[in-house]
Amino acid sequence: MKVLITGMDGYLGWSLAQYLAERGHEVAGVDAYYRRKWVEEMGSQSATPIVEMDERLRAFEEKWGEKPYFKEGDLTSWEFVKSIFEDFRPDAIVHFGECPSAPYSMIDVHHATWVQTNNIAGTFNILFAMRDITPEAHLVKLGTMGEYGTPNVDIPEGFFEIERGGRKDWLPFPRQAGSWYHWSKVHGSNNTMFACKIWNLRATDIMQGVVFGTRIEEMGDDERLLTRLDFDQAFGTTVNRFCCQAIVGHPLTPYGKGHQLRGFLPLQDSMQCLTLSLENPPQAGEYRVFNQFQEVYDITGLALRVQKVAGQLGLTAEIRNLENPRQELEEHYYNPDHQKLFDLGYQPTCKVEDQIRVMLQDLMKYRDRIEEKRAALIPDVHWDGSHRKVEFAGMLSEVGTESG
Amino acid sequence: MKVLITGMDGYLGWSLAQYLAERGHEVAGVDAYYRRKWVEEMGSQSATPIVEMDERLRAFEEKWGEKPYFKEGDLTSWEFVKSIFEDFRPDAIVHFGECPSAPYSMIDVHHATWVQTNNIAGTFNILFAMRDITPEAHLVKLGTMGEYGTPNVDIPEGFFEIERGGRKDWLPFPRQAGSWYHWSKVHGSNNTMFACKIWNLRATDIMQGVVFGTRIEEMGDDERLLTRLDFDQAFGTTVNRFCCQAIVGHPLTPYGKGHQLRGFLPLQDSMQCLTLSLENPPQAGEYRVFNQFQEVYDITGLALRVQKVAGQLGLTAEIRNLENPRQELEEHYYNPDHQKLFDLGYQPTCKVEDQIRVMLQDLMKYRDRIEEKRAALIPDVHWDGSHRKVEFAGMLSEVGTESG
Repeated sequence: MKVLITGMDGYLGWSLAQYLAERGHEVAGVDAYYRRKWVEEMGSQSATPIVEMDERLRAFEEKWGEKPYFKEGDLTSWEFVKSIFEDFRPDAIVHFGECPSAPYSMIDVHHATWVQTNNIAGTFNILFAMRDITPEAHLVKLGTMGEYGTPNVDIPEGFFEIERGGRKDWLPFPRQAGSWYHWSKVHGSNNTMFACKIWNLRATDIMQGVVFGTRIEEMGDDERLLTRLDFDQAFGTTVNRFCCQAIVGHPLTPYGKGHQLRGFLPLQDSMQCLTLSLENPPQAGEYRVFNQFQEVYDITGLALRVQKVAGQLGLTAEIRNLENPRQELEEHYYNPDHQKLFDLGYQPTCKVEDQIRVMLQDLMKYRDRIEEKRAALIPDVHWDGSHRKVEFAGMLSEVGTESG
Repeated sequence: MKVLITGMDGYLGWSLAQYLAERGHEVAGVDAYYRRKWVEEMGSQSATPIVEMDERLRAFEEKWGEKPYFKEGDLTSWEFVKSIFEDFRPDAIVHFGECPSAPYSMIDVHHATWVQTNNIAGTFNILFAMRDITPEAHLVKLGTMGEYGTPNVDIPEGFFEIERGGRKDWLPFPRQAGSWYHWSKVHGSNNTMFACKIWNLRATDIMQGVVFGTRIEEMGDDERLLTRLDFDQAFGTTVNRFCCQAIVGHPLTPYGKGHQLRGFLPLQDSMQCLTLSLENPPQAGEYRVFNQFQEVYDITGLALRVQKVAGQLGLTAEIRNLENPRQELEEHYYNPDHQKLFDLGYQPTCKVEDQIRVMLQDLMKYRDRIEEKRAALIPDVHWDGSHRKVEFAGMLSEVGTESG
């Protein structure tokens, strides 16, 4: 299958390119290298050293015998997107080419507007290119479980049956996103759903949980094949950040009470799930939603697991809750369905603690790179619009943790 | 009350300025004159002759004794919006400053992207200006009943109680918009809801039905106070278009089967409802949704009423259904709640046929202006992306009308 990956230089994009190549798919990629610039703007860098795309592609060619088609360019340019579709004519597009950060979108009015308009414009160009050039192609769009927020009822996979006044319908489940970025993903989901309806396109919208992990098997020992691993407030995700904190002896920092519940999955499983979507495309005109995660975890519970594995490796990691810079429920009901990918054959590949062990072992080598940007470990972007480094709220025991 | 009207040069904006001034409110306005350019781009013009803003403001001053604060400028400029808020410090903002056309947004990828990013950016600037400069102000945001689409269940006013698996929550009602423009309004509603939540702002989101009418009382006989009245495919709305068609002896043109049901209200009532919202603001942090329309009508039923009143005035108007350029249900269930504005005191001011009579009498004077742009009466923007003048589907009786 010919798969175009937008955002191929990113955390998921570079991993997926390798995962698909290993399975015999023909990969193409585009990227404008925004992620590298954003992380620099946040005063940070990838914990793993990442080489330039040229060198990445050479390593890729050495391992899989063929250099992927790759173009540097911006998805908000219709001419660029059109030319890529005309050149490569993908069977499927995996759309990672959006700004993926909640805190980044909350910095100020300019960042809020940029994140939403950038994400909308790029997705529009892809949808229109599909309509005009490859109407049979399958769009796998990366969304986020964060689109749903944390309603007090079970969360279905995208749609639910509604009954009101004795009448029924099958409707999109209400979204309650928690940042301008998360809303940009809702906007994109809505636009994608509508494009499938009016143009008979096919799309899988992935409501993905929080991904963690430093590697997939395919990367082996070639450092040029490593994917990036961010630990700053804006582009680092929970478990990845906790692991980096443990490496440099920084406290692990759940926000607020720390009992937020989220779906999580290892990087390797994210790749497995995305590939299952690609290899089992929907019908023409079908817009389907997959909730993509392995299991729901409590944030503090994950911090405790990182602490435990770190201890086994001789690293001391205390857990200190931070004042929460976000506005979110810190104790809440959370029960999202996630059956569809299991039905397609998803088999979780590893236990969380085993994955954390691999991560810590990988990251030990890059201790100095994390240390160098240690200040990036504490957030300063608040949901109320203020900018100041958050304070420690106290030791774990002081904020009333009951689970472990 | 100090009310800032964004889009004050438009159909609703110019009317509301007068309605509010008559009731003693202090009005300010901004506009970039986009509406004038869009309608020109569609090969059309306002049926009513409209003078430049300078002249409008002079007429306003002559009648109400004071010239409104007015600035020409683009809402997508943060600096512009910020300066307006700092200068005028509104108690309330009525946000009409968005591109309001479904067909315009469906022209091509550039129009789709522009409509959504323009509408998002302008609304963001207003929300951030409220947060930073006038956090107590009340935003009255113009949405559309089209945000809901036509679900097979009753439509509440914004929110509904959901019950799933024995648990309950109060959630935003699912939206199923029918064009990129309508989705831009959903995106804006979502962003506004979130801003109220995190910044404690207050907003009324108006899901407005289709407005019709050439005037409000306040305009009197001064032609400089007239508001615009569009009849092209993109900026003309149903009844306004039917009336203009009747004036020039053009068939009245319901799309498809013509049994689409929509909520409608006269221009005068739209002003009354908006003023009720302004004079009864929500609490800080409250985001409320009003479904703003007088009654639900069948499109063909409205065409028949225009035909009838036109006949009484000596105008012959046949009804000929057009091939539907849109993708929408043409026969469907439709029952939206609309109680909240009635609870605040909304009293419909006139019967539909009386209103149509006033419109036809007003428009007779401008027959030549409509005739001049007669070609604009037939649409050519199709939801599938094609561009060709639609065909007549046949006489009313041929397409199986059962109601009257």
